[in-house]
Amino acid sequence: MLETELIATDKKSKARVCNLKTAHGVIETPIFMPVGTLGTVKAVNQNILEHEIKAQIVLSNTYHLYLRPGMEVMEQAGGLHKFMNWEKPILTDSGGYQVFSLSEFRKIKPDGVEFRSHLDGSMHFFTPEKVIEIERSIGSDIMMVLDECTPYPCEYDYAKKSQKLTSDWAVLNKKAFEKTKPLYGFDQNLFGIIQGSVYKDLRERSAKDIVNLDFNGYAIGGLAVGEPMEQMYEMVSFTTDFMPENKPRYLMGVGRPENILEAIERGIDMFDCVMPTRNARNAYLFTSNGTLSMRNNSYKNDFNKIDEKCECYTCSNYSRAYLRHLFIAKEILALELATIHNLYFYLELVKTAREKILNGEFVTWKKEIINKISINELNNSEE
Amino acid sequence: MLETELIATDKKSKARVCNLKTAHGVIETPIFMPVGTLGTVKAVNQNILEHEIKAQIVLSNTYHLYLRPGMEVMEQAGGLHKFMNWEKPILTDSGGYQVFSLSEFRKIKPDGVEFRSHLDGSMHFFTPEKVIEIERSIGSDIMMVLDECTPYPCEYDYAKKSQKLTSDWAVLNKKAFEKTKPLYGFDQNLFGIIQGSVYKDLRERSAKDIVNLDFNGYAIGGLAVGEPMEQMYEMVSFTTDFMPENKPRYLMGVGRPENILEAIERGIDMFDCVMPTRNARNAYLFTSNGTLSMRNNSYKNDFNKIDEKCECYTCSNYSRAYLRHLFIAKEILALELATIHNLYFYLELVKTAREKILNGEFVTWKKEIINKISINELNNSEE
Repeated sequence: MLETELIATDKKSKARVCNLKTAHGVIETPIFMPVGTLGTVKAVNQNILEHEIKAQIVLSNTYHLYLRPGMEVMEQAGGLHKFMNWEKPILTDSGGYQVFSLSEFRKIKPDGVEFRSHLDGSMHFFTPEKVIEIERSIGSDIMMVLDECTPYPCEYDYAKKSQKLTSDWAVLNKKAFEKTKPLYGFDQNLFGIIQGSVYKDLRERSAKDIVNLDFNGYAIGGLAVGEPMEQMYEMVSFTTDFMPENKPRYLMGVGRPENILEAIERGIDMFDCVMPTRNARNAYLFTSNGTLSMRNNSYKNDFNKIDEKCECYTCSNYSRAYLRHLFIAKEILALELATIHNLYFYLELVKTAREKILNGEFVTWKKEIINKISINELNNSEE
Repeated sequence: MLETELIATDKKSKARVCNLKTAHGVIETPIFMPVGTLGTVKAVNQNILEHEIKAQIVLSNTYHLYLRPGMEVMEQAGGLHKFMNWEKPILTDSGGYQVFSLSEFRKIKPDGVEFRSHLDGSMHFFTPEKVIEIERSIGSDIMMVLDECTPYPCEYDYAKKSQKLTSDWAVLNKKAFEKTKPLYGFDQNLFGIIQGSVYKDLRERSAKDIVNLDFNGYAIGGLAVGEPMEQMYEMVSFTTDFMPENKPRYLMGVGRPENILEAIERGIDMFDCVMPTRNARNAYLFTSNGTLSMRNNSYKNDFNKIDEKCECYTCSNYSRAYLRHLFIAKEILALELATIHNLYFYLELVKTAREKILNGEFVTWKKEIINKISINELNNSEE
């Protein structure tokens, strides 16, 4: 079972430092989890992921893996760790979000959600029990419950009904988790998800319902879906007050570097987002001085590193001019080099946040760093 | 200047073992040169290329680099080695082949070839002098002369005229090479190219013309362009008899593993081909037991290595089932893993050929290995 060791709490904010002990090693929080939807973090191999990017845990996806390669292959492989050759921790999203965002047809019923595969149109039915069964087949260290992720904006009445449904399903998820056993000889953990859209009373109700069920950790879902940033921060801050100190707190799908730092300040430990990987593939690079659009003509003969302060494989070996050339020529290597850099940047960011919390400088550092990194080249680009 | 040390010649065939000393290190022949057209071997980074694939030299392309990123960037970078961060030898194709195969408009004139860029339609004029100038800007260890590569089939009269043109241009190439100096403080070398289509008298004439000009090495061009394999082998065997023993011999654009072994037997030292990299990206994998089409349904739950005997990064870490999953899901990692495997296979093949020549077992081994590796799954595939 997940052991959560609360190492330190910031005196000037709600920021925390924890060590989470899983069957596949310790996760040092605050942590960012690279997204490996289909059992691969797009464009980088597992050796790079572990040794160059220094990922401590990756996120994979129940909905996607269930459809491809399917659970028969997954079980024959001995679970996802063996299938993808990744010996560090894995967290699996329940698939709830994908059912709601990807499927062209979905119907929510009291006991689950019926949906049409975005790949071949085949019909499937996910229940809390079914999702637990799939996550047992995957063998993730941290399993997420099936929930309903409300969109933004969301009417109060719908949000209330949905929050109730997510709480009801949470009970079923927990029961199914307790009734089943891991398939591969190591402990798995189940995290509950707090919903409630942007309504404080619903967030409070949800938090109390979910925490009452005693999960191994708690996530805040249904944010970063289009609401204003300030509202997201307010919801995070409000919700973490109802989350126990001795369990990890995960803000799902967040976000930009500045969002992560603001959420750390408000008491969050874990993050995931496709932004560093997706932006990398679109030539948007994060640096300690703001984002760069590597296709920009101004980098044509710029032989500097992407980020002067960065020690990633890409910055240690290649110039902006070379990376621009690869993007312009549509070379596959561009995708790998940009992905390595962006993920390294995210991992360094949370690692530094941890150090700053430990030495009491987090709040001051956070303000300075946000001013620098949130400069977006796209706003004042030459082209 | 290129030092060619002829280490051994096979007693039972014309196969040879050489060490070629360049400013960027020794090349041990027979050697296969991975193709890095635009300053990147598609889908693999330079660290993988050097340490996992163990490439000794890569091929890049004058025509492509001239168009993108252009020679201004190339010179500002300090040449291609620095631009792409590759410290081992580089050979550059002259661009002649690309002018003839890619450009929608080209006009051969006595002093060069006028062509339209396949990228933006702009007009350019390549002369032997211009190509030497570009290759000086690139800073390749081995520069190729501008030639005309005849198609197949090719009328005798055209082939004869073309062979004469290539010989005339060879003189101009050599002069331009002697008149110019390297830009980056290390020696470059120039290889001549023997043409003559499938006509023995033209091949002999061309070989004598070109060898007479005393280049640092000699290539056979204009083969592997559609002629029957036996005819290619015959031409290679015929032509190498006119090539000096103390200079490297390069068969351009060849080929399948069995083609390479047959050509080694006929006295060739160096090879390049897009086949291992291009096939990899199309899910065709070379193994010691023939080729596999990794999208095949039969690999869905096949947890064996791609090649039981292979020790490449891919085979050491991932299964056929995982690779198939990546290809089916169109994941970028599939391209990298397949490319690593195929290039490793080619490099191992020529490395073993070298060992077998040295211990006198080459001819016997070649027959055995060709029987195994030339089994093509596509011929008897289930799907």
